[in-house]
Amino acid sequence: MNDLGIFTTIVTAFAVLAMGLGVLGPGIGMGMAIAKALEALARQPEAEKSIMRWLLIGLAMIESLAIYVLVVVLIVLFRSPMLDYLLHK
Amino acid sequence: MNDLGIFTTIVTAFAVLAMGLGVLGPGIGMGMAIAKALEALARQPEAEKSIMRWLLIGLAMIESLAIYVLVVVLIVLFRSPMLDYLLHK
Amino acid sequence: MNDLGIFTTIVTAFAVLAMGLGVLGPGIGMGMAIAKALEALARQPEAEKSIMRWLLIGLAMIESLAIYVLVVVLIVLFRSPMLDYLLHK
Repeated sequence: MNDLGIFTTIVTAFAVLAMGLGVLGPGIGMGMAIAKALEALARQPEAEKSIMRWLLIGLAMIESLAIYVLVVVLIVLFRSPMLDYLLHK
Repeated sequence: MNDLGIFTTIVTAFAVLAMGLGVLGPGIGMGMAIAKALEALARQPEAEKSIMRWLLIGLAMIESLAIYVLVVVLIVLFRSPMLDYLLHK
Repeated sequence: MNDLGIFTTIVTAFAVLAMGLGVLGPGIGMGMAIAKALEALARQPEAEKSIMRWLLIGLAMIESLAIYVLVVVLIVLFRSPMLDYLLHK
């Protein structure tokens, strides 16, 4: 097995595994944030607008974490920067 | 075993494993959000419309995390970008 | 052991492992949601219709996560897209 074969195999395998692991934390974190937001909403229904504005800002920030993983995974899959060293050596 | 055989074996194995790991976080997160939503519903039944609107928005955002994993897994399974380097070398 | 033997062995093993891991999170999440639903039901028995409607919607969304895993596992087991590369080489 040559360099290119080893590179593509291991990189693709770990990229897809990283995507799977990368949503573990964000998924649990979002659940915790939504849970407490709904509890707060039940306690102070008149503060709905305020609670939910901040919930959405929080969820967007957690979502950004998953987006980071997605972006890195797609970069590695489609345009792995280090692949050039193997192709033009 | 040649390059293509190793690539297809390991990549398919890791892709399906990543899908399995990828629903771990979202599954727990959704459970937490639903749990608190139902508790909030029991405390403030008159706020049902408001609570459930926000629960559904939250669940949709968690679901998006699982969709990311699914998309990456399907890309790797059906159109792995790095496979071209092995086929046309 | 030739390519096809290694491919079928490892891919089948990982597919069934992924299915096993894939229900871990959704299983815990569903348990949390149902637990709180029953607690809410005990507190507000007159809200049963409302609580259980939302519990079922929530469980259906968690179930969708497990369905993703099932679909990917069945695709890999029955029509692994990468198997063609090994068969027609």
